Amino acid sequence: MSKPAPSPIYLDHNGTTPVDPAVLAAMQPLFEEAWGNPSSPSAPGLRAREALEAGRGRVARLLGCEPSEIVFTSGGSESNNTVLKGVVNPAEASRYHVITSSIEHPAVLNPALYLAELGAGLTVLPVDGQGLVDPGAVREAIEPRTVLVSVMLANNETGALQPVREISRIARERGVPVHTDAAQAVGKIPVDVGGLGVDFLSVAGHKLYAPKGVGALFVRKGRSLTPLIHGAAQERGLRAGTESAVLAAGLGEACRIAAERMDRDMKAVRAMRDRLQELLFESVDGLVLNGPQEGRLPNTLFVSVPGVEGGRILEGVPTLYASTGAACHDRSVTLSHVLSAMGVPPEVGMGALRLTVGRSNSMGQVEEAARMIADRVRELRKEER
Amino acid sequence: MSKPAPSPIYLDHNGTTPVDPAVLAAMQPLFEEAWGNPSSPSAPGLRAREALEAGRGRVARLLGCEPSEIVFTSGGSESNNTVLKGVVNPAEASRYHVITSSIEHPAVLNPALYLAELGAGLTVLPVDGQGLVDPGAVREAIEPRTVLVSVMLANNETGALQPVREISRIARERGVPVHTDAAQAVGKIPVDVGGLGVDFLSVAGHKLYAPKGVGALFVRKGRSLTPLIHGAAQERGLRAGTESAVLAAGLGEACRIAAERMDRDMKAVRAMRDRLQELLFESVDGLVLNGPQEGRLPNTLFVSVPGVEGGRILEGVPTLYASTGAACHDRSVTLSHVLSAMGVPPEVGMGALRLTVGRSNSMGQVEEAARMIADRVRELRKEER
Repeated sequence: MSKPAPSPIYLDHNGTTPVDPAVLAAMQPLFEEAWGNPSSPSAPGLRAREALEAGRGRVARLLGCEPSEIVFTSGGSESNNTVLKGVVNPAEASRYHVITSSIEHPAVLNPALYLAELGAGLTVLPVDGQGLVDPGAVREAIEPRTVLVSVMLANNETGALQPVREISRIARERGVPVHTDAAQAVGKIPVDVGGLGVDFLSVAGHKLYAPKGVGALFVRKGRSLTPLIHGAAQERGLRAGTESAVLAAGLGEACRIAAERMDRDMKAVRAMRDRLQELLFESVDGLVLNGPQEGRLPNTLFVSVPGVEGGRILEGVPTLYASTGAACHDRSVTLSHVLSAMGVPPEVGMGALRLTVGRSNSMGQVEEAARMIADRVRELRKEER
Repeated sequence: MSKPAPSPIYLDHNGTTPVDPAVLAAMQPLFEEAWGNPSSPSAPGLRAREALEAGRGRVARLLGCEPSEIVFTSGGSESNNTVLKGVVNPAEASRYHVITSSIEHPAVLNPALYLAELGAGLTVLPVDGQGLVDPGAVREAIEPRTVLVSVMLANNETGALQPVREISRIARERGVPVHTDAAQAVGKIPVDVGGLGVDFLSVAGHKLYAPKGVGALFVRKGRSLTPLIHGAAQERGLRAGTESAVLAAGLGEACRIAAERMDRDMKAVRAMRDRLQELLFESVDGLVLNGPQEGRLPNTLFVSVPGVEGGRILEGVPTLYASTGAACHDRSVTLSHVLSAMGVPPEVGMGALRLTVGRSNSMGQVEEAARMIADRVRELRKEER
């Protein structure tokens, strides 16, 4: 008798999350009920408008802002681009200066580099060995022409929580608006735009059990942006395009659930992550934690097995879905930009594994995952001898 | 015994369409099966990638291009902005010139005006009384610095089919790329990018029975664009953001259905539109057709009842969902930019009604709609005497 195929274990929730069944249930009827054009005054339009605004209210509630401060977008990348490009007049880019950090998502770093190509000043702040931005460096980087500081709330690889509150305080003193890419934080930890003091905040639906194709942008009342997508006057003129009431409702429901389950999820996810970390450190010699032990997303474990390729580890455990932190080709290693920015040596970073726990995992799964990884590392190390 | 409430009649398919049940059926299982991140090499990612590429193949098939020439976007507005802004370096906008027409959708006109604000040259071509662009005017407008001609394939109000093929031929002779906003044409009439000779073509999912929140952009092989959304390398570097396999599959299925039903739908929809037109012209004195009789989308009827406010006509027939072509406030009339560009007098344009037939309508419905409109107009005219 052959053993049944083992069920897969998904530990890549920072990559993307499945759609929560309750989110799906909230969206399903709306495909048929709220398909109207929210800009139309007829009954189908009004029904769609209602669902759209209900979704907006729920997103606002999770973030602690007014519904009128929420703009729906197609996702985190669009939200980030809207802010970065929306604060600079590209015709006279050299009159502007933007500050960001070396560990941002490409959807912040690449628009920032694009602005620099156009002639804008750009400061990319370094991070320390734990992957943290120094708020003092923000103070030093601010120039009279600085129009934005953009520092993420939680890093997607290390889970490191950045000192956004302190950064906002410093920038605010100088009258400089602050943006934070909160794609990895929203839904995992409490996020309050008031407490953070930010002017702009990006949300990516698919990181918090909403579908792909929807995101949000918090734009503090009184702040303005040049739209990324010009056209008709949807979303108070900040984002053209017929709004999807269905996707907005999906993101709204995901935010409602996140708020409702926040304490419970954080506790459960943290317990699983901590157990996974404990087991791996017990069973894998020389294991290194990338990023901080404290001040980290409760679901994120980013470790390195020195001298062993992360990709080869995962190849040997095909029922475990996780990410690496480096790409190895022939004999060269390309570390992720986050590990590079942290100054992690290639022989350590090459063995990086990112294990990110989520709502659907069980304690049994993380224990099984730890066992599989430890076995696989032993096997690879034996081969090498 | 009171009469049962009449079922509503939706004649606003150029505004938006409901999601086709088959499109919904194609998407439903994918929310659970294809939720992975298409950039991830793990099983959930591969499954999502597969659905994404299948969707892309179907969109490409409808348009007659290679799948690699299709970029998924969040909708028509994003597709249009991607082209308009993607061909101009905003840091030296004055070295660029763009040609468009006065009857484009705001998602073309407003990005074009934004480019002009940055310093780019902009020619907005007039239209004739039928709402048609003269290809000869394109020839005259081309300058050495012209980098784009953007003329829509079918107008959303009049349904007028623009001479895009001739415009492409003229522009191509001068080496100028051509974009067409085909949001209103795709799914309603055969659209072939080869025959049209265009370099860029925009598709809006929700105009062809796919959900809102998804669109596509055809980018001819060899043409390049600066991305509107910078970030990770999705969509061959042309559009960052985690792709929604579900939405792509929805748009793909909508395109497959459109191709399959094209002949049948065109015939049925045209018969209903023609009947509606015939009945209205029979029963409403002085009715005016806005736009051309021939060379028009088969589903579109844009008429004016001179001297009567379109909005007041629709107010009196609350179970008929349609659009107007003007907004009346106090004693002043603001015509749509399309009617204005056509030189329609305010006293005629104020009474504009856009009636756009779709897949779900029946001949009985259009006959009922004609009766309701005619009765309502009679009522309003009586009041005025």
